[in-house]
Amino acid sequence: MARWEGGAAERLQLAALRLFGERGFDGVTVAEIAAEAGLTERTFFRHFGDKREVLFRGQEAFERAFLEPLETAEGDAMTAVARAIDVAAAYFTDDRRPWSRGRQAVIDAEPRLQERELLKLSLLAEAMAATLRDRGVDPAEALLAAENGVTVFRLAFARWIEEGETRSLADLQQEAFGRLHAMLRS
Amino acid sequence: MARWEGGAAERLQLAALRLFGERGFDGVTVAEIAAEAGLTERTFFRHFGDKREVLFRGQEAFERAFLEPLETAEGDAMTAVARAIDVAAAYFTDDRRPWSRGRQAVIDAEPRLQERELLKLSLLAEAMAATLRDRGVDPAEALLAAENGVTVFRLAFARWIEEGETRSLADLQQEAFGRLHAMLRS
Repeated sequence: MARWEGGAAERLQLAALRLFGERGFDGVTVAEIAAEAGLTERTFFRHFGDKREVLFRGQEAFERAFLEPLETAEGDAMTAVARAIDVAAAYFTDDRRPWSRGRQAVIDAEPRLQERELLKLSLLAEAMAATLRDRGVDPAEALLAAENGVTVFRLAFARWIEEGETRSLADLQQEAFGRLHAMLRS
Repeated sequence: MARWEGGAAERLQLAALRLFGERGFDGVTVAEIAAEAGLTERTFFRHFGDKREVLFRGQEAFERAFLEPLETAEGDAMTAVARAIDVAAAYFTDDRRPWSRGRQAVIDAEPRLQERELLKLSLLAEAMAATLRDRGVDPAEALLAAENGVTVFRLAFARWIEEGETRSLADLQQEAFGRLHAMLRS
């Protein structure tokens, strides 16, 4: 409906990240974010419910990136999860890396945002476990596999956004999986 | 200071659980909980910040039960975590089982409470990973071990509070660990 606002959400997100990086999450108002993006507060609230949503928008797309491949991945629970997060890694393209890096820096500086991020990942693990159970996987095995998949993703993601890191998220996840197997084999 | 209020917190918790079980978490007010316990609202707020805290009080003691043994447990990261959660299981004595069972039923019925519970467990895993890092464990290994320890605890705890279950939490955790090892060995 608002064709002339094309890309407004992205402009607001980038403006917010710039300001959060300078003054911290609490040091920035919605009005300032809108002004920085050259837009109005009204436009801001057409796209985001509140300031925090600027950082947490797209939860559904994020979850779908993991759940859709999990629905059809073959093999036992752990193998299916490994395959699903390998497919999901494609969601994190190289051109997203700077955004992800800046976003994480803002989150790491603020305990309330860290909690929200932890919860997001916990909910992803729950949803992955439910997907596996729907496929007939034993509930205990489903939870163990899903939690490990999310932990491997977290570890690899943390490395992926390190300064100077150039490997793909998929490669880093495979490395983390190798580590997990080695730890539990010993 | 309030000697005549001895056990007030516990009375309020049991009264709350009774009422939540009958009418759901949202169907009960603080005033009703206090009345059910034969106490005043003022007394309630001397013990709990809000209604939700009735279910989530004691987070520090809960975390300490896992973190203290982890500080001194010997062996590699995974072994140390297994030992720590084995010691922590003693925190969940048999006489706590009915409370834990009733509390979980209330939480399972309300998504907001489920989120809070997930967050509590995520924060425990973070704290366990930090404890391992302080001991010089590599950060990736610390996170993998801590997350797996908490997942094993969750699985075993869910079974521990099932109707008719009589095995100890420690035994159930050992069973869940065995399963995890088998899954990742294959």
